[in-house]
Amino acid sequence: MISMQKTDGQLQLRLKEDADLIDSYLSRVCVTDDSDLSPLFEAMRYSLLAGGKRIRPFLVLEVAAAFGVEREAALPYAAALEMIHTYSLIHDDLPAMDNDDYRRGRLTSHKKFGEANAILAGDALLTFAFFIATNEGDPLKNAAAVRVLAKNAGPVGMVGGQIMDLAAENRQIGVDTLKKIHHLKTGALISTAIELGLILSSAPVSAAVAFRGYSERIGQLFQLTDDLLDRYGDSAELGKTTGKDEKAGKNTYLSFYSREQALTLASDLAESASNLVREWDTNGIFDDLAQYILTRRK
Amino acid sequence: MISMQKTDGQLQLRLKEDADLIDSYLSRVCVTDDSDLSPLFEAMRYSLLAGGKRIRPFLVLEVAAAFGVEREAALPYAAALEMIHTYSLIHDDLPAMDNDDYRRGRLTSHKKFGEANAILAGDALLTFAFFIATNEGDPLKNAAAVRVLAKNAGPVGMVGGQIMDLAAENRQIGVDTLKKIHHLKTGALISTAIELGLILSSAPVSAAVAFRGYSERIGQLFQLTDDLLDRYGDSAELGKTTGKDEKAGKNTYLSFYSREQALTLASDLAESASNLVREWDTNGIFDDLAQYILTRRK
Repeated sequence: MISMQKTDGQLQLRLKEDADLIDSYLSRVCVTDDSDLSPLFEAMRYSLLAGGKRIRPFLVLEVAAAFGVEREAALPYAAALEMIHTYSLIHDDLPAMDNDDYRRGRLTSHKKFGEANAILAGDALLTFAFFIATNEGDPLKNAAAVRVLAKNAGPVGMVGGQIMDLAAENRQIGVDTLKKIHHLKTGALISTAIELGLILSSAPVSAAVAFRGYSERIGQLFQLTDDLLDRYGDSAELGKTTGKDEKAGKNTYLSFYSREQALTLASDLAESASNLVREWDTNGIFDDLAQYILTRRK
Repeated sequence: MISMQKTDGQLQLRLKEDADLIDSYLSRVCVTDDSDLSPLFEAMRYSLLAGGKRIRPFLVLEVAAAFGVEREAALPYAAALEMIHTYSLIHDDLPAMDNDDYRRGRLTSHKKFGEANAILAGDALLTFAFFIATNEGDPLKNAAAVRVLAKNAGPVGMVGGQIMDLAAENRQIGVDTLKKIHHLKTGALISTAIELGLILSSAPVSAAVAFRGYSERIGQLFQLTDDLLDRYGDSAELGKTTGKDEKAGKNTYLSFYSREQALTLASDLAESASNLVREWDTNGIFDDLAQYILTRRK
């Protein structure tokens, strides 16, 4: 907690700087001068540029930077990852899935553009991500980046987690199954952020192992705090409806842990994550991020 | 027509051989030993292994083979392309899109597995395609293949064509707009097949130019015969409902051409396509394919 209070301003500044870099890159590459296609790009941009914390692309930039790679060189992979994250939100919000009307404080894509256009905007963002990931830079690294993105976002990663999540609705599951769902559904893209940073920076193996451990822990931490916020958070701050997961019959960590147990586990995860990468965390950014996820209000 | 009658048996044999290679490869790579994920893979396989003519992957294999590349080496790209084609069919059939109950003679994915699972099966196939395209072989070629797949399947390719198609429903459009819709919606993946074969084989530039011309022509030919079959074809042979496009208020080439004009244009396209690549068409396979598309009954 001391380190968070000491450097929270620094993390916020870095998050803001990186988010600006990422937003500006996304805005620059996700455009068309073809008026026939502009309705599609408008729908893609509506969701892609709706704000959000940009934690995944931030991690790509910061892991790369920790090993001496310029943030600008990491932007294509960071952007690709954010496009994939955004597509998953658009499809998740669809009537056939979570049926959400609001996301990031504004109408969801299908409420704004209709269901067909929302499906296609999601498809377009997912596909475009792979175009952007191979947009510039070293083709050897690009091929490795595509492989990590496709593996972790696909059927043995995020989409697999979504299928398991759907199947688990209104059903009693064990905590191990819940962990696996979140490991795939949320953890896979956070791990991808770390892997993309590692690919860019050719970090030593010992660092790669440590950062993989870090990403696993903050992935679980992220989900724990998400469940805590869903149960106890404030709807206005979140920009979405509170308590929705439970009402929808979704399993959350709070089906297995008391609030106090969950907070203790979260705190342990944050500390253990930070310790793993301390050697390379010269500015304390990764420690601060773990603390930020632990104490976030939205 | 003479060449078709002469070698039609040879083309059919080659189509069958290649389709068997492709189906067996798809079946081998699209699997999981994780029982939590098997419902997702089952839905992916249901649509992926539903038969179909496999013309796109066939083209990948045959262009590669025309320049001395073993068919087996072309299977990952061919499979990736077929996965993308299949995902597009699953999403196209959804209630919010074309709302089709049958595809390739069996229930569509959402009728069989429900809408949420169909959306996710499509998402999974699209993502998995990029995993398979980078599965083996030369990473430099894989990066190039990903770039072609992502460009032509994404917002400036197939998905762009689908958005234009949706926007054009029940609206009067010109023949140039219709051509552009089909160029993006159907032509883009046929061009991709050719480009993937060219990437694999490092064909000379003159051949690449010729085969690009060939793919443009057979792309347009394919759509023309599709429209002719939709208007005049037989529902049982097609495995889908006849006259549906017009009933749905879709624009077709037959809004602009008489049946006779369309048949003449189709015949000219087939001949011109064949002539372009004759120099490299030692077995007459590309000529036969153009004739096959021209005279197909489904």
